[in-house]
Amino acid sequence: MSTTDTPETHPEPDGPRVDRRRFLAGVGLAGAGLAVGGAAGAGIGYAAASGGTDTDAEVEPFYGEHQAGIITRQQNSLVFAAFDLKDSATVPSVQTMLARWAAAASLLTQGKPVGPVESRPMTPPADTGEAFDLGAHRLTVTVGFGPTFFDDRLGLQDKRPAALQPLGQLATDTTIDPTISGGDVCVQACSEDPQVAFHAIRNLARIGRNVVTLRWLQEGFGRASATSTSQVTPRNLFGFKDGTANIKAEEPAVAGEWVWVGDETDQDWMKGGSYLVTRKIRMHIEAWDSDDITDQERIFGRVKESGAPLSGGDEFATLDFTAKTDGQPAIHPFSHVRLAHPDNNGGAQILRRGYNYTDGIDTRTGTLAAGLFFMAYQKNAHEQFVRIQNNLAQDAMNEYVSPISSSLWAIGPGLSKIGDWYGKTMLGNTP
Amino acid sequence: MSTTDTPETHPEPDGPRVDRRRFLAGVGLAGAGLAVGGAAGAGIGYAAASGGTDTDAEVEPFYGEHQAGIITRQQNSLVFAAFDLKDSATVPSVQTMLARWAAAASLLTQGKPVGPVESRPMTPPADTGEAFDLGAHRLTVTVGFGPTFFDDRLGLQDKRPAALQPLGQLATDTTIDPTISGGDVCVQACSEDPQVAFHAIRNLARIGRNVVTLRWLQEGFGRASATSTSQVTPRNLFGFKDGTANIKAEEPAVAGEWVWVGDETDQDWMKGGSYLVTRKIRMHIEAWDSDDITDQERIFGRVKESGAPLSGGDEFATLDFTAKTDGQPAIHPFSHVRLAHPDNNGGAQILRRGYNYTDGIDTRTGTLAAGLFFMAYQKNAHEQFVRIQNNLAQDAMNEYVSPISSSLWAIGPGLSKIGDWYGKTMLGNTP
Repeated sequence: MSTTDTPETHPEPDGPRVDRRRFLAGVGLAGAGLAVGGAAGAGIGYAAASGGTDTDAEVEPFYGEHQAGIITRQQNSLVFAAFDLKDSATVPSVQTMLARWAAAASLLTQGKPVGPVESRPMTPPADTGEAFDLGAHRLTVTVGFGPTFFDDRLGLQDKRPAALQPLGQLATDTTIDPTISGGDVCVQACSEDPQVAFHAIRNLARIGRNVVTLRWLQEGFGRASATSTSQVTPRNLFGFKDGTANIKAEEPAVAGEWVWVGDETDQDWMKGGSYLVTRKIRMHIEAWDSDDITDQERIFGRVKESGAPLSGGDEFATLDFTAKTDGQPAIHPFSHVRLAHPDNNGGAQILRRGYNYTDGIDTRTGTLAAGLFFMAYQKNAHEQFVRIQNNLAQDAMNEYVSPISSSLWAIGPGLSKIGDWYGKTMLGNTP
Repeated sequence: MSTTDTPETHPEPDGPRVDRRRFLAGVGLAGAGLAVGGAAGAGIGYAAASGGTDTDAEVEPFYGEHQAGIITRQQNSLVFAAFDLKDSATVPSVQTMLARWAAAASLLTQGKPVGPVESRPMTPPADTGEAFDLGAHRLTVTVGFGPTFFDDRLGLQDKRPAALQPLGQLATDTTIDPTISGGDVCVQACSEDPQVAFHAIRNLARIGRNVVTLRWLQEGFGRASATSTSQVTPRNLFGFKDGTANIKAEEPAVAGEWVWVGDETDQDWMKGGSYLVTRKIRMHIEAWDSDDITDQERIFGRVKESGAPLSGGDEFATLDFTAKTDGQPAIHPFSHVRLAHPDNNGGAQILRRGYNYTDGIDTRTGTLAAGLFFMAYQKNAHEQFVRIQNNLAQDAMNEYVSPISSSLWAIGPGLSKIGDWYGKTMLGNTP
């Protein structure tokens, strides 16, 4: 059986020292070629044959000031992939991959295949096809870079933002598995349909297969945050509403203050971008499930059913840390909501965008290997996430959770138009 | 922190030699208690607070001739759990667990919690809560028994159906992992929302925690079958429409002939039930993705985009095994559709109900650990699935797949009314 590649549909630049003008022209051509393939070669967009839910045909805008998938109303499914550069990777090959990814993502997020399936009998289909009858389902593709991307392999040390200093080992981080942490490049795919998100990651991995290898991959379900006031606050696997006070898409001023990188950055290419912290947090579900409701609520600081703070009111009531119950603080000093609250962290807020996960069972114990794939976007993770997380070292909830993965990513700004690509403002002038 | 259990909400029968009449009364009480807890104690059904998709409030009937989740229009998400009996398990403790599972499933499938959350301050919540704001999303819970359930531990050897003979090692089964195969009891939870399915399995595992332990657990997404003519034929991770000729809910005569156990059984308790084969089939995606479209289509016997047979017509056209292309059979002798077709298997058909899966990456190779969690229901797996699978030993697709899990389950008939429970017609008179 043939293992022929498809150079025709994935044109390479001429070589590692490709002239910038010619390289960009080539990228444009690649993007256009893919677009033509998607629209004409494959004949139909994915949405055409759908007979499913209302979200099938919903499309999130791809071009814009910021990358989609950050403040975007959070979708129900996540597939997150971390990649390592191959030893053979060069700046031109990385540029080409990122340009192809942009062209592919611009199609995928419209519910289109990345290229034709049937047009060339003796070559593999350009698109793997498993999302062929599905719509976009609000797919977003968000691309970023880990600290190691800027080490001496590609010679990009000068492009590394100061804020991309690795998180290091925080006080709670005694159980981190380095094999599922870090990586050179990341792709976050979110959609209302898990197959659409999986398809996006698979096809980007395929497009990048000569440049990067998969380092780890995480699926998530049951969004564990709300990023829009139009969304009900969801529940984590402890059964509590989580992130009631999250930053919302309807609060652009708050997002401007806490989410988007601005003039304070030492790297212009990060303006309009954000820093993403990903943490895989194993929850000890069976232990939690044997704890009484009063203790569970004391740990969270909220009522389980309603989500209301223990100081009173409804879910969205302001937390009153001075309120007393039977002479004791109504919201315990070591409760999660209190330690995480901006008032106790110099005002710091983060945009949470996590997902619940399960990896099946922990075969050593027969318990559910499940928890939260925490994701948070912010202007500066060291001043926001790290500050809050250090405060959470006292969190009573720590008895029931173990962080097993921890990573920091620089998520560049949005792509402005066709021909733009991920990292272009960083890499576009690099020979 | 308390680790107190909740005996009040999970009443035990009096002991292992419990009188049958009292036991059944106790089960009825337990069921009623849970129902009251669900309706009154927790105050609201899950669906009440939902602001989500159209499927939120959709409920599949729980009581009926057959268990739901078999011929039921296939949902988008699966969580499948295999359990082993604890050494301490006895027939009465298993009876009680199965009765509680029935009571819980009757509530969960209506979008209700299995019990109250806030009513008893010093006890754990009866329901774990993570589906609290979600609807039923067409949840079905389907319970069955593996061959080992009937070994000498519980003394139920006489209740084992002849058709529950283990599958054994088939010709293609060189890579089966026994730790993710088999088990004494299984629960299949299907829903349009993965969090609802996860919640069901978690709460049943919790209810059964003194009787069974989790052996393995499998999540699935992107249903890889259609079980209703109202559904578009979905695609597996090879990008092909799969199961075009599947048995459909709208064909009760076909289901009667091939799916439901009838008078031929040696065990009356299985009448109206079915036998479920579960197979986890790792797909070597990267190898497949490098194969050319012509070869992919030759292996399947169908056109990738349309799903039409290579002998012509549309997706649902009858396969013509005599048709020729350039003097060769249009549908190759070793193609999947030909080898699996009823005409080449003595007419045998099966009801496919599989799901796509991914377990992240295979860390040994950096490739995607993804594939198909194959599930098929039938009257007799040895005469149907095994016959077809033996024919598929010649399947050209075998180069691209490795079965890693293989199990056979006896799925009893439906529950007829409140007070009925899983396996009651088998275990109700025991001891």
